[in-house]
Amino acid sequence: MPEKKMNHDKKVIIIGGGAVGMAVATSLRRHSNYSVTVFSKDKHTAYGQCGMPFVIGKQIKDFDSLILRDNKFFKDMGIDLRLESKVDSVDIGGQKVISNEQEYHFDKLVIATGSKARIPRNLQGSSLQNVFTLRTLLDAMKIEEALNEASNVIIIGAGAIGAELAVAISQRNISTILLNRSSSVLSHNIDPDMAESIKEHLEYLGVKVITEHIPESINGETHVESVTIASTEFPADLVIISTGVEPENELASNAGIDIGDSGGIIVNEYLHPSVEGEFHQDIFCGGECVEVHELISGKPMLSQIASTARRMAGVIRNNLTSNPEQFGPILNPWVAVIGKLQVGSTGLTSKAARENDIKIVTGLATGSTRADYYPGGSKLFIKLIFSERYLIGAQIIGGEGVKERIDGLTLAIKKRTTVDELANIETCYAPPVSMLIDPLSFAAKGALKKMRKLRK
Amino acid sequence: MPEKKMNHDKKVIIIGGGAVGMAVATSLRRHSNYSVTVFSKDKHTAYGQCGMPFVIGKQIKDFDSLILRDNKFFKDMGIDLRLESKVDSVDIGGQKVISNEQEYHFDKLVIATGSKARIPRNLQGSSLQNVFTLRTLLDAMKIEEALNEASNVIIIGAGAIGAELAVAISQRNISTILLNRSSSVLSHNIDPDMAESIKEHLEYLGVKVITEHIPESINGETHVESVTIASTEFPADLVIISTGVEPENELASNAGIDIGDSGGIIVNEYLHPSVEGEFHQDIFCGGECVEVHELISGKPMLSQIASTARRMAGVIRNNLTSNPEQFGPILNPWVAVIGKLQVGSTGLTSKAARENDIKIVTGLATGSTRADYYPGGSKLFIKLIFSERYLIGAQIIGGEGVKERIDGLTLAIKKRTTVDELANIETCYAPPVSMLIDPLSFAAKGALKKMRKLRK
Repeated sequence: MPEKKMNHDKKVIIIGGGAVGMAVATSLRRHSNYSVTVFSKDKHTAYGQCGMPFVIGKQIKDFDSLILRDNKFFKDMGIDLRLESKVDSVDIGGQKVISNEQEYHFDKLVIATGSKARIPRNLQGSSLQNVFTLRTLLDAMKIEEALNEASNVIIIGAGAIGAELAVAISQRNISTILLNRSSSVLSHNIDPDMAESIKEHLEYLGVKVITEHIPESINGETHVESVTIASTEFPADLVIISTGVEPENELASNAGIDIGDSGGIIVNEYLHPSVEGEFHQDIFCGGECVEVHELISGKPMLSQIASTARRMAGVIRNNLTSNPEQFGPILNPWVAVIGKLQVGSTGLTSKAARENDIKIVTGLATGSTRADYYPGGSKLFIKLIFSERYLIGAQIIGGEGVKERIDGLTLAIKKRTTVDELANIETCYAPPVSMLIDPLSFAAKGALKKMRKLRK
Repeated sequence: MPEKKMNHDKKVIIIGGGAVGMAVATSLRRHSNYSVTVFSKDKHTAYGQCGMPFVIGKQIKDFDSLILRDNKFFKDMGIDLRLESKVDSVDIGGQKVISNEQEYHFDKLVIATGSKARIPRNLQGSSLQNVFTLRTLLDAMKIEEALNEASNVIIIGAGAIGAELAVAISQRNISTILLNRSSSVLSHNIDPDMAESIKEHLEYLGVKVITEHIPESINGETHVESVTIASTEFPADLVIISTGVEPENELASNAGIDIGDSGGIIVNEYLHPSVEGEFHQDIFCGGECVEVHELISGKPMLSQIASTARRMAGVIRNNLTSNPEQFGPILNPWVAVIGKLQVGSTGLTSKAARENDIKIVTGLATGSTRADYYPGGSKLFIKLIFSERYLIGAQIIGGEGVKERIDGLTLAIKKRTTVDELANIETCYAPPVSMLIDPLSFAAKGALKKMRKLRK
C-alpha cells in the first residue's frame, strides 16, 4: 500500500542517504511542509565519509566520531528514514518508487544515488577475501578490522583516497605499497612537476610508491596472499582497490532517465534530469551520480567531491521550495591532506588544458607560510596556469594555508582575473602567518616574465 | 665634495632604509646599472619590524633573528649604505641632497622616510624615563631591557602593535594594562561587534583592558611611576605609547614637495611627488610617508603596513628601470596575531562605510576551520560588508586560516564580487583543513537574507 501522510502538503521521496540526500531531507523539513522519505541501501547515514582515512590513521579517535547525526535526530525531524532499503525501480509516469515490493507515491523525487567503486576490469583476484574498496563506513570498519592482522598492504590507485590511506596505514608500521597506473601520484588533480614532492613525502613517510604499473593479478586461495606487479609477486595480506568511482545510475537509467557520455545523469541548470529528452519538473538529481560542466572548457564531467554534492543539495532544496536557483558550471576545487602536506588544485591542470587544446603559460613559485624568522612555517609550492593572460588553474602544496588559497584562486578564475592582477595582488602580512608578499604574487610574476619572453 | 662613481650610468639616492628603501636599493642593483646610495638615520636596517612584538613575546628567539641582511650583504651588492646618517635637506632644482654638510648629486631620488610615532599632544610625562614608543629595533631593544626590571606595564593605544605587545608582555607574567581611547580594541580595522571577542581573548590572556579612556597624565620624578586614568593612579614602571604613527615628511615638505591633507606626500600613479603642483619625473616617493587612495571611497589615506610599502618598492623599481608601472588605489588588507587569535580585515569597516555615507548590509557567520569531528580546529568569526550587493569589506577572527581568507576577499572586492556569488562560492574540502562548505558562504547567505527582508 502506498504510504500517505495527510498532515503534509506534498510527498518528497529521496533515493540516497549521502551528502545530498540527507542535506535535502533536513533542509526541506526545516523550511517546508513536505513529507520526506529517504531510502538508502546503506546501513549508516550522515557520517563524514571524507574522514574515514583519518580514523584509520588514528588522527580521529573512532568511527563513531564521524557520525554527525543519529537516526533519532532524523526521526525527530519527521523524516521517514529507511536504511538498508534498496529502491528496486522508479515509475516516473506513475509517480512512484518500488522498494521491497511496496509502492511509494511521490509528488517530487530526488535521485542522489552517488557513486560506486570502480574495479579495474579483468583484474584477477579482486573478489578474494581481504580485498577491499573504501566507499562506506562499513567498508572502513572492515578495513580497520583487517588491518589489525595485516603486515603487508597494497593500495591500488594513488588518487586522494589512495594516498591518504597509504599514509594512514604506513604510519601504523605496516609495510605499505601504493601502486599507480600513471607516472605521477594524484595525476587527476596535480601535474607531474608538482606531484614529485608529494611522492617524495609519501616515501619519507615509509610508503613504497610504484608508478606506471597496474596490478597483473591479485593472488591467493581464499584470502589475498600477493599481488603481481611487473611480473614480480609482492606479498600482501590486505589490498585496497582505490581506482576511482563511477556513478551509481542503474536505477535512473532503467527508469528512462538520460545518462551522459560521462556516465552521469544529464541535468539542466535546475538539476532536473532529462527523461527521453525533456527535463522533468518533478524530479531532481544531485551529487556524484550527476553530470556537471567544467567552467573553462564547458565540457561535461563528473565531480566526485562532497562540497559539490553539498552545493547541489542547496540548489535542490531551494528549487523544491520557493527560491528558484541554478547550479552553474564548476571549477571543482579540491584539497587532500597527505601526511604533513596539504595538496590542493582548482580549475584545469596543464594536462587538462592540453587535452582541451588550450595554450597555456605557467608560473611557479616557492614560498613560505610565515616570515623566514618566525618559527613553525612551512614551504609553499605554487603553480598558476594562465591562458591568454587569464588564470585558468592553480595547484598548491604546503604545510598550511593551502585550502584557503585554493578557494581564493577558484574565485579568481571565476571572476576572470589576469596575470597582471595576480602579480600585483594586495595581500596582508603578519610574521606569524605570512610572508611580506604572498608567494602567489611571485608565481604570477614568473608567468608574466615568460609571457614577455614569448612576445619577443 | 659631491661623490661620483664613473663606472655607473646614473646615480640614485634613496632616503630611508626601511621596507621601501632597501627593497628598491637591492632590486636596482640586481636589475640596473644605477649607482645606489642609501641614507638612513637609524642604526639598523633590513630587519623584520613587524616581528618585534614576537621577540618580546619570546616566540622569536632574539632580535638578531629579525635581521634579514647584514651590512656586508649590501656592501657586496655595491650599495653605498649610510646608517645613522640624517639627510638635512634636499635641493630638488640642484639635484642634490645635503647630509652632514656634504652635498650628494642625484639623477634620481627616492624618498622613503616612513613614519614616526605619534605622541598624544599635551600628554604630561611622555618624556619621562621608561616611557617608550616602538618604531625601530633600537626602541624594541630598549623596551626588552626595561621589561626585565618591570612589574607594571601600561600600554597606551590598542591598535595591532599595542595589542600584540600587551599579549607579549602579559605572557611574561608582568601585570599589563592596555588602555584605549575607543570603546573597542583595534577599532581602526575591526568593528565593535567583532572586536568584543578579541577583548575577551586579551583578558583571558591576563591583559587588563580599559576602553573609552585616555591617559590624563604620566607621573614620576625621573622615571615613570604611574599613569592617571579616569582620576585613578595606576602604578607603572614602564609605559609604551602606541597611539599610531604619522608620516615623517619634514624633509620633503621643506624641499617644496606637496603634502596632502592626510599628512602624506601627494604622488601620482607612478609615485612621482607633486612639487609645487607638478609631478617631478626624477623623484619617487613610497611607503608610509606617502598618501594613497582607498579603492572604494576614492579618498586619500595613509597605509601604514609593510605589505603596501613593499608593493610600492616594486613599482618604484620598475619605473626606475624599463617597465613603467602604476600603483593603484588600495584595500589595505591587514592581519594581526593577538595571542591565539588571528585577526584580519580588508576594505571598509561598517564604521568607515558610514563615514562615507555608503549604505551597507552585513552578513555574520560563525564557523570552524576543520570538520567538527577533526581535532585541533578553531572557530572562525566572519563579517562581510556589502553595498548594493557588492562586497566592500570583510573582517575575520579565528585560530587559523584568517590571512588567506582575507587575501581571497580582498581580490573578491577588487573584482566586484556580489553577495550571490559569495553565497554560492565553490570551496574545497578535506576534514583536516575545512568545513564541507566554507563559512564565508554562510556569512554571504546571512546578508542575502537581510537584503530579501529589506526589499519586502
